[in-house]
Amino acid sequence: MKEQGVKTRAPLVLFNWTNEEGARFFPLLGSSVVYAGQSTVEQAHASISTDNSDLTMGQALQRIGYVGDGPNTYEEFPISAHFEIHVEQHTDLEKAGKPVGWVNGWQGMTWYNVVFHGDDGHANTKPMWGRRDTLAASAQLITELENLAYEKNGYTTTTGIHSHPFGSCNIQSKTKVVFCLMHKKAEGLEDMGIEIEKRIASIVNQRGLEYELERDIHLLPGNFWPEAIDCVKRACGDKGIGSITGTGHDSTMTTRLVPTAMVFVRAKDGISHSPKEWSDKEDCAEGALVLGKAVLNYDEVLKAKTAA
Amino acid sequence: MKEQGVKTRAPLVLFNWTNEEGARFFPLLGSSVVYAGQSTVEQAHASISTDNSDLTMGQALQRIGYVGDGPNTYEEFPISAHFEIHVEQHTDLEKAGKPVGWVNGWQGMTWYNVVFHGDDGHANTKPMWGRRDTLAASAQLITELENLAYEKNGYTTTTGIHSHPFGSCNIQSKTKVVFCLMHKKAEGLEDMGIEIEKRIASIVNQRGLEYELERDIHLLPGNFWPEAIDCVKRACGDKGIGSITGTGHDSTMTTRLVPTAMVFVRAKDGISHSPKEWSDKEDCAEGALVLGKAVLNYDEVLKAKTAA
Repeated sequence: MKEQGVKTRAPLVLFNWTNEEGARFFPLLGSSVVYAGQSTVEQAHASISTDNSDLTMGQALQRIGYVGDGPNTYEEFPISAHFEIHVEQHTDLEKAGKPVGWVNGWQGMTWYNVVFHGDDGHANTKPMWGRRDTLAASAQLITELENLAYEKNGYTTTTGIHSHPFGSCNIQSKTKVVFCLMHKKAEGLEDMGIEIEKRIASIVNQRGLEYELERDIHLLPGNFWPEAIDCVKRACGDKGIGSITGTGHDSTMTTRLVPTAMVFVRAKDGISHSPKEWSDKEDCAEGALVLGKAVLNYDEVLKAKTAA
Repeated sequence: MKEQGVKTRAPLVLFNWTNEEGARFFPLLGSSVVYAGQSTVEQAHASISTDNSDLTMGQALQRIGYVGDGPNTYEEFPISAHFEIHVEQHTDLEKAGKPVGWVNGWQGMTWYNVVFHGDDGHANTKPMWGRRDTLAASAQLITELENLAYEKNGYTTTTGIHSHPFGSCNIQSKTKVVFCLMHKKAEGLEDMGIEIEKRIASIVNQRGLEYELERDIHLLPGNFWPEAIDCVKRACGDKGIGSITGTGHDSTMTTRLVPTAMVFVRAKDGISHSPKEWSDKEDCAEGALVLGKAVLNYDEVLKAKTAA
């Protein structure tokens, strides 16, 4: 923009949000939740490592000299709008033959964890019938989850399982399963939640087990700001289409505060969270161009607002 | 026996075999395999802890001052026969209303571990169809295993599962499942093995996965020594019945060397490997009496052999 002599009404700032993924420290969206006032810097620093060590995110930042003393919240550092560029992580753009897209909103998601409690027993000698095997129950649940996704036109995934006691001919007596439900519509998401809770109750009844069910995250589907989406849409022109994202982003936090929208860049086979994630260089360039144009479009909106 | 002035031809010795269970250090039957010449003291000391620490059984014994310098093998310390008392871990005695029993042999068992390899991906955004989800495949296998047990009149158990990557909306791309097959007959066991290998191949084909399958343990069913069993049978009288054990014992090692038999004591509901394992005091006393009588019966057999 400097090279081209572009002058904006509002100053531009580039955010590089820490711990968006939550891959190493839980919870995810670790800084944008603080910015949006949904958490505090202290809580973010206390985020625990997913590798079962005692390391916190604060300690890890300290080690590499990345604990700053700048502003962290919207109150301390307000912005007028937020535009985010991201790989699509899905196949809509690829199917439409488009390099970029605007994002109307996000699908809803519910994260559950369930712990089944059964009975210990010797796996080689105790009769099959009458066992209270929590791993067999979990297998039934995981299969039900996969079926549910197709039946209800949503997504489901089991992202983790821990079962005890490990090895040495022990019937499994305690198994924890972590899973998520995703649906583009609020009713669809609610319906999936009701349905899976019923099926879990049926599984434990069939097997005489006890269980605890927790709903860790429940995010209804929502839309970004029309005035911000429109800026991206116009920047895309006929090179883009609209879609919605399947998951949470820092933008799902900033949209609580200020006009927010996202730019999608085409991904090969919808793959992400994988070393195989791929976007062509040309598509990335197109995405960057759309991001820049969208920001300039919004600057015009701001000028008009100020003038009004 | 001293109190009652009982004199035997052969001296009696009491074995307390270390690490029979293999609960903390793998492999199981940790000392009787050495005694039977199937392993060495060095290998037993190098047994690794199941808690993922680097601790070996040798180090653990050293810590508590239990590394001895006595004989460890049959060659160094020969015996004429081995009699073992054990909780039944099954419901045959309970159903028959008998406190004790003799053990004709053991059922066969095969231990497998299978590792499924799929693709990483974002669990919230990647379309359901076309995923290569190793945890969903594992769930299918665990359900198949349970069905197989009932179909083939054998036992099966999944004793462990480890799946990666844990949490944070990741499709599971690597899952290890440890399971065992058990059957009273050799043909039954072979048949189950062939069948489950087929079903695993079918699951990975359905889901486009890769896999590695290892057979860690393959123990065909077998019988203890008739002359030793007969000594237990006579000691039981009408208080006992005969059965076979579902699992491995130190006796399945000593029986490779010398006449061996086992005494079973009735267990409540066949429960074992559990804090709920229970045998009445009266049944335990009956079991001890049978053990003593069986040993004296065998001493008579020895006398007769020597005389002959």
